[in-house]
Amino acid sequence: MMTARELAKRLNLVLEGDPAASVAGLATPERAHERDLIFVGTAKHAPRAARSLARCVIAPPNVPLTEKTVLRAANPKLAFAQAAALLLVPPRVAAPGVHPTAVVGAGVRMGKDVAVGAYAVIEEGAEIDAGCQIGSFCSVGRGAVLGAGCTLYPHVVVYPGVKLGRDVILHAGVVVGGDGFGYVPGEGRHWKFPQIGRVDIGDEVEIGSNSCVDRAALEETRVGAGTKIDNLVQIGHNVQLGDGVLIAAQAGLAGSSTVGKGAVIGGQVGIADHVRIDDGAIVGAQAGIPTGKHILAGEPVWGTPARPIRKYLHQLAWLGRLSEVGDQLLRLAGSGRSR
Amino acid sequence: MMTARELAKRLNLVLEGDPAASVAGLATPERAHERDLIFVGTAKHAPRAARSLARCVIAPPNVPLTEKTVLRAANPKLAFAQAAALLLVPPRVAAPGVHPTAVVGAGVRMGKDVAVGAYAVIEEGAEIDAGCQIGSFCSVGRGAVLGAGCTLYPHVVVYPGVKLGRDVILHAGVVVGGDGFGYVPGEGRHWKFPQIGRVDIGDEVEIGSNSCVDRAALEETRVGAGTKIDNLVQIGHNVQLGDGVLIAAQAGLAGSSTVGKGAVIGGQVGIADHVRIDDGAIVGAQAGIPTGKHILAGEPVWGTPARPIRKYLHQLAWLGRLSEVGDQLLRLAGSGRSR
Amino acid sequence: MMTARELAKRLNLVLEGDPAASVAGLATPERAHERDLIFVGTAKHAPRAARSLARCVIAPPNVPLTEKTVLRAANPKLAFAQAAALLLVPPRVAAPGVHPTAVVGAGVRMGKDVAVGAYAVIEEGAEIDAGCQIGSFCSVGRGAVLGAGCTLYPHVVVYPGVKLGRDVILHAGVVVGGDGFGYVPGEGRHWKFPQIGRVDIGDEVEIGSNSCVDRAALEETRVGAGTKIDNLVQIGHNVQLGDGVLIAAQAGLAGSSTVGKGAVIGGQVGIADHVRIDDGAIVGAQAGIPTGKHILAGEPVWGTPARPIRKYLHQLAWLGRLSEVGDQLLRLAGSGRSR
Repeated sequence: MMTARELAKRLNLVLEGDPAASVAGLATPERAHERDLIFVGTAKHAPRAARSLARCVIAPPNVPLTEKTVLRAANPKLAFAQAAALLLVPPRVAAPGVHPTAVVGAGVRMGKDVAVGAYAVIEEGAEIDAGCQIGSFCSVGRGAVLGAGCTLYPHVVVYPGVKLGRDVILHAGVVVGGDGFGYVPGEGRHWKFPQIGRVDIGDEVEIGSNSCVDRAALEETRVGAGTKIDNLVQIGHNVQLGDGVLIAAQAGLAGSSTVGKGAVIGGQVGIADHVRIDDGAIVGAQAGIPTGKHILAGEPVWGTPARPIRKYLHQLAWLGRLSEVGDQLLRLAGSGRSR
Repeated sequence: MMTARELAKRLNLVLEGDPAASVAGLATPERAHERDLIFVGTAKHAPRAARSLARCVIAPPNVPLTEKTVLRAANPKLAFAQAAALLLVPPRVAAPGVHPTAVVGAGVRMGKDVAVGAYAVIEEGAEIDAGCQIGSFCSVGRGAVLGAGCTLYPHVVVYPGVKLGRDVILHAGVVVGGDGFGYVPGEGRHWKFPQIGRVDIGDEVEIGSNSCVDRAALEETRVGAGTKIDNLVQIGHNVQLGDGVLIAAQAGLAGSSTVGKGAVIGGQVGIADHVRIDDGAIVGAQAGIPTGKHILAGEPVWGTPARPIRKYLHQLAWLGRLSEVGDQLLRLAGSGRSR
Repeated sequence: MMTARELAKRLNLVLEGDPAASVAGLATPERAHERDLIFVGTAKHAPRAARSLARCVIAPPNVPLTEKTVLRAANPKLAFAQAAALLLVPPRVAAPGVHPTAVVGAGVRMGKDVAVGAYAVIEEGAEIDAGCQIGSFCSVGRGAVLGAGCTLYPHVVVYPGVKLGRDVILHAGVVVGGDGFGYVPGEGRHWKFPQIGRVDIGDEVEIGSNSCVDRAALEETRVGAGTKIDNLVQIGHNVQLGDGVLIAAQAGLAGSSTVGKGAVIGGQVGIADHVRIDDGAIVGAQAGIPTGKHILAGEPVWGTPARPIRKYLHQLAWLGRLSEVGDQLLRLAGSGRSR
């Protein structure tokens, strides 16, 4: 719980109204109780805020809300998210301490204030830095390293030797460090190419439920700091994700592709192997990027094979117009042919 | 085990043949033993039934099967599925009672005849209604509520506060209630938008292995009663699924989309955010629906971006014809240009 | 550890250089230590090998590497993978013996040298053949059968009655034997079609993290020997996969489709029900194959609906050219119409 004054100060926002108004949670205008913080992004939504039970609102500078205590923000949604970071108690996935049923292998090193849930298994030689929370049924493999403040929800599997940075969040069912998919055909069968490389997950990475990050064949799969990955995403072996990348649900990256800093990958995007995606590039949902392609920033790409969105939309429009005038064109082509 | 007479009575079907014939299981004609029930959908498959060891057959009215005990049904496949509901013993995912290794938190309320498997963890304050079966390694979070008769296969994760209706079936690896994917960019990083809403799963919902249903940001993600979801499906935060929706494997719905009653979503369909799909609409496999679109019932939609199937097929046909007569057309375009 | 001489002999390769050179691991040229084995596929990469610390290199016959001990192979990558099979110690997912916390049901039969990890649950009547390794939190259902030498990483769920062949590898989060997705609409709801069939996984199959193989409705879902399946793949009920099939990540096969021996299915491919894919056919990434289609070998197929790649590329090229000359064509169509 904070007062409006504290909140305004911490978020560096101008405050109008009662500085002593207390804020305890966050909500939508319609669901808010008196002490929930709400936000309105534009003047259009001001009546929702005005009708809300909430006393305290984040709003843009030019939106009058005379009955409320208002924190003025150029980007209210951003300020609301930043307020959440101050107001919300981080989720607790395990009670403090090591649950008596947890199995902790020889030589495991644990920092201060580590919480390990029921039936977690931490194999020999793993390092769990201060403040980590490890949920029930998590499996942390031999020699894995978890930086300070990581949160592993129940049922996360971290294969041996995987390295997580600081404040990494892995949701239920995430698997980090499984073997990459690499076989060499010969003598009538598929020989497994060695999948013995590493995985390095950067600081403040969050990975959604049931997503998979494969270990490298011989080198390292890397997820840059601050990258956020949605549910059911596949990150293949040797992939290099830059910092601050966003990857929406069910997207998949095949082996050895690289994604630059701050790029955005839409849902169900498929990225083949050895693709290069530049810093800040945007790949629209369901796009497909063939092997070895290079995607530039500047204009989002769409479709399979992915092309700049204007080109994609132009082609789509063409398809539509063709199906209107097509018979006419075919008749012309026929007469042209007979000339 | 039932007699043909009982079965006919319960299913309200006309019986021909031996009313005392006993039926103990269900099978295909080729694999059936004497007491297995089989069905034929059309006259074409009658010889398969005739050759079967099964004594008892569900068949349409006009298909002669003189050697068999026949239950006449206008929709034999439906009658067969309804017979299955009578004949099959529901799967048992845990032995009766609470396994001694299960960890049950403070204040957990359990109804009659609840079965909890080995190494399940039920956190404090959860409510488990009568007849629920909870498999090994399931994690039921703080304050979650399971209606009567739910079946959780091993390795299901129900995050804190999630609400399941009556007779919900969750297959192995399902995750309900993980954080939605929402970040606000600012000051060079991605700020997590609060993901603190609820999930409400309706009665008789079934969700396939390793599928994910995210909790809402601030409000509620809702799956309507009788909705059936296949494996590896992603349901984003704030999604509203109506009753009786079918969603095939690997489909994904981004945030805040709504799907009307009885709609059918094909495999690998991608639905962006804030999409509205009407009651009874049909979305063909792999279709992609862009942000904010409204899909009507009446004609299935296909392709990306999704369009009515006749239009889609027409455009496809056009593409095919173009590649036959295209050079001719281009020549015409060239001469047209030079006029 | 082996000597170069032993390795050459086992792999049937010609050796140049020091037969006593010892080889202990595998690496890329850049990361190799002295005793790591490396390979170069073509002369272009020879300088990388020459600069490497590694003493021992697999290289094609015509690539000079005078400072190294060289094993000559027509297919160096294949030889490298085969060397890996000799050099790498198989991963150990559980310590030898049955962990005291494992729950082993009545009538479970275990062969020699089975390893069962912490908190694994093996239900009554399961058969675990010699040399199997079962990781933490694995759930092996009633009556399931595991052939010799299977490796189940942590968090694998094998439903009751599933049969695995010899040397099967299942990565974390794999679910085998969940119910197929089959419902019959009637009387305003979806009736579950019985999903009571079997699953038979062949010898030397490997399945990636969080993939799902459904049990058949009434018959059998089959995965042929030596087939390799990547992460997050969906194999529907009654699917028949031949031997040596490769299926890349996030592909999905709906019910009753068959895939012939040695076929290759790209990432995110969607295969509808009752599709037939011939031996050795190749389906490009993200392709979609509609219900009932028959895909031939000989030319890879791409796109949705999948067509031979030359046709696909031709149509794509056409779309591109149209958007250049399109207005001209439309003008012609207009004038043609008015004639």
